[in-house]
Amino acid sequence: MKMNIKMTIAYDGSRYYGWEHQPGNDLTIQGKLESVLSEMTGRPVEVIGAGRTDAGVHARGMTANAHLETEMTEDEMLAYLNRYLPEDICVLSLKQASDRFHSRYNALGKTYRYTCYVGSRKPVFDRKYVYVPEGVPDIRRMRRAARDLVGEQDFASFCGNPRMKKSTVRRVDSIEIERQGDYLTLTYHGSGFLQYMVRILTGTLLEVGLGKRPADSMPDLIAARSRPLAGFTAPAKGLCLMQVDYHTRDRSDS
Amino acid sequence: MKMNIKMTIAYDGSRYYGWEHQPGNDLTIQGKLESVLSEMTGRPVEVIGAGRTDAGVHARGMTANAHLETEMTEDEMLAYLNRYLPEDICVLSLKQASDRFHSRYNALGKTYRYTCYVGSRKPVFDRKYVYVPEGVPDIRRMRRAARDLVGEQDFASFCGNPRMKKSTVRRVDSIEIERQGDYLTLTYHGSGFLQYMVRILTGTLLEVGLGKRPADSMPDLIAARSRPLAGFTAPAKGLCLMQVDYHTRDRSDS
Repeated sequence: MKMNIKMTIAYDGSRYYGWEHQPGNDLTIQGKLESVLSEMTGRPVEVIGAGRTDAGVHARGMTANAHLETEMTEDEMLAYLNRYLPEDICVLSLKQASDRFHSRYNALGKTYRYTCYVGSRKPVFDRKYVYVPEGVPDIRRMRRAARDLVGEQDFASFCGNPRMKKSTVRRVDSIEIERQGDYLTLTYHGSGFLQYMVRILTGTLLEVGLGKRPADSMPDLIAARSRPLAGFTAPAKGLCLMQVDYHTRDRSDS
Repeated sequence: MKMNIKMTIAYDGSRYYGWEHQPGNDLTIQGKLESVLSEMTGRPVEVIGAGRTDAGVHARGMTANAHLETEMTEDEMLAYLNRYLPEDICVLSLKQASDRFHSRYNALGKTYRYTCYVGSRKPVFDRKYVYVPEGVPDIRRMRRAARDLVGEQDFASFCGNPRMKKSTVRRVDSIEIERQGDYLTLTYHGSGFLQYMVRILTGTLLEVGLGKRPADSMPDLIAARSRPLAGFTAPAKGLCLMQVDYHTRDRSDS
């Protein structure tokens, strides 16, 4: 039977060159999924992701779809995938979707979370999933600066691709900055993000929190449209794609 | 100033050959600590651990002491250690102890925790700290069997060292078996444990939970004093030394 499957996927990106399939390089999440699905169906399968995550970035809710032909049930496919995928990639759910469902074109928004360890010791057991800033940032200053980053704006200053030809306008719906015990999290929700944008926003906000740049300097920084004026690119390991939003009719039930 | 320092230590044991220093092998926790302390004081320092953890076993509360001579304060030593130790070892606290304090001889009891993932997916982000059993064990059956393992008994059937010459009598104070969401934990408290004892107890209890051996078979197993009759040795990665108990006068304040 021909079908279009929709998958929600979690992965530890530590050892991968990112989501996107690269010719001649097997170590990508998309590549691993395509390889197992092709083996499962006996013919080449293309996996379409909601977006690309960079090398070293993690996901707890990446969404992808794939058109394939099989007699297997959804549960059988889910079990097959999780059995043959490496232990650092897990398909959390798998459902048949409408033929027209496209995980990238239909995505309405994405939630990313950046996690910092700000305790007085060392994050021994989750060191691959957190970044340790040089000091404890002031979250009130960060929240003040984050307010000016919300909205539909030209984020050219926060774009990691210097040869970006297309529009650098994006809509950031919210940036929530929370401290829970030894952890500081920055949760971003928006329509879409430019390359490295979440990590550059995070690096810039951390610099504000550490007193290295004024909390009210974001409007000028946005107006400047200049990447060198923004903060450092926070390391990939602290970043995780949490969720991709779709219209209810596209939503997987699990 | 000469002093005896008492340290509480956390480590991810994944890449180590265990706690104990081995001649010609630098990859032990004790070896790493001795190397940094010796560098710090400018002369060889011996680190005495409360016990040995095997290759791949983790700790959140190992205790160790070391006699050394330094002009540094406790806080300075703590900062120095955490700066120069690898990122998978952290000294949680460091206090001056009485000259007579010996982390092994003075230990009154130890708490170990074994963690299994029993969810329907895969433990992507904590896969190095949990074991995934082949099925979901029945914890009522496990608790029933565990009752017969508590007390001062001869645990020869649960001793991984076939050439053990000394007494195999140990006192197990409690075994708590809990399910929390996708995780099943077995928490052992006792006066001391034989080599691989916690892992063999866990393997045996998991076999009871999976219906592979009767829940009331522990007394016969203990009486047999035969390692081959007990269950499998549960993998090292699921095990963590949580705490070492001392008399209040030996207790570190942190």
